[in-house]
Amino acid sequence: MTIAILGGTGKEGAGLALRWAKLGHTILIGSRDASRAQVKAAELREIARASAITGHSNAEAAARAEIVVIALPANGLASTLPEVREACRGKVVVSTVVPLTFGTGRLFAPPPIGSSGEEVASLLPEARVVAAFHHLAAHELADAEHPIDCDLLICGQDPPAKETVTQLGQAMGLRVLDVGALTNAGPLEGITAVLATINRRYKLKNSGIKITGL
Amino acid sequence: MTIAILGGTGKEGAGLALRWAKLGHTILIGSRDASRAQVKAAELREIARASAITGHSNAEAAARAEIVVIALPANGLASTLPEVREACRGKVVVSTVVPLTFGTGRLFAPPPIGSSGEEVASLLPEARVVAAFHHLAAHELADAEHPIDCDLLICGQDPPAKETVTQLGQAMGLRVLDVGALTNAGPLEGITAVLATINRRYKLKNSGIKITGL
Repeated sequence: MTIAILGGTGKEGAGLALRWAKLGHTILIGSRDASRAQVKAAELREIARASAITGHSNAEAAARAEIVVIALPANGLASTLPEVREACRGKVVVSTVVPLTFGTGRLFAPPPIGSSGEEVASLLPEARVVAAFHHLAAHELADAEHPIDCDLLICGQDPPAKETVTQLGQAMGLRVLDVGALTNAGPLEGITAVLATINRRYKLKNSGIKITGL
Repeated sequence: MTIAILGGTGKEGAGLALRWAKLGHTILIGSRDASRAQVKAAELREIARASAITGHSNAEAAARAEIVVIALPANGLASTLPEVREACRGKVVVSTVVPLTFGTGRLFAPPPIGSSGEEVASLLPEARVVAAFHHLAAHELADAEHPIDCDLLICGQDPPAKETVTQLGQAMGLRVLDVGALTNAGPLEGITAVLATINRRYKLKNSGIKITGL
């Protein structure tokens, strides 16, 4: 499949690009600055030993993709998504966005709508939004030979879109669990605050989460 | 230790009571209605084969305890906690409260202050509040011979209070992880919404969470 990763120059987006490229998908790295996306794409082609990774503006990447992954910072959604609204119409859009604010105060700071996933859905009303991939450490994704010791928890309103994302996760070797409607995106995003705190406190780079009892 | 469990007639509170009674602690079950607490205490004495479980009004249980566990429904905090404020002064207070609203709409519905744990702290300003025990399925707690396949994630502002709660968790056989300040209580409480959704969707009673990578 052809997968755009908006904000794909960041660590999390680049890690997903690497994993999916090695599985044979065509990857379009998107960035506000197309030349930065091209530099990152060249770097990833080398690491992945895969040729189908190219760099583009966010708008061009979204327009050319079958699936659009949003790996933007939470505070960049309102400025970036309106320009890709038409390109995302009817497409599966995966929000990996986590509303964390590092520094003093409250680490988990979701927008008034409840979650970044719901903000994505409100800015891309005709897209089929699934929130997923919040908990996979960038550090784990980057080592593409290594199995990832983490469940993939997803939520969204569109069952076929969730099925597509489930297959993308299972192909990476992950157990995928359906966590219901997009109103659960806030709790899923909040888990990243828990993991970031544990990483800092226990000097880790790659804590993750597994669901027990099933 | 002498542990009061306010709202101890509910499933989660009763499960904790059972586990701690079997470990030799003295348990004071608290309820708005002292006679209901006495009935539940008699039932738990029989199951636990432990004599040190008694029933009381919430206020009396809090006054007589060294540690006060809040296992009330989220919407009962504002009406119940003011009457125990004096009794909780300087004590370790454990909030197990999760702001879930079953029915239609948004399952996870934290109060404006950010979390039930922070609401407890605001209503009991002189208490040493730790948020913990949100993720242990009541069904798992009730079978007191059975090891629990779940990590205990805790947060709070008072390191010695967290150490006390850590010991209470470790005595139950749990791995305990410190998840920082009480501003992380929202993300911890939100995990219960994730687990409740998974339980419903996969027809389970006892899903839990384990942190990987450490």
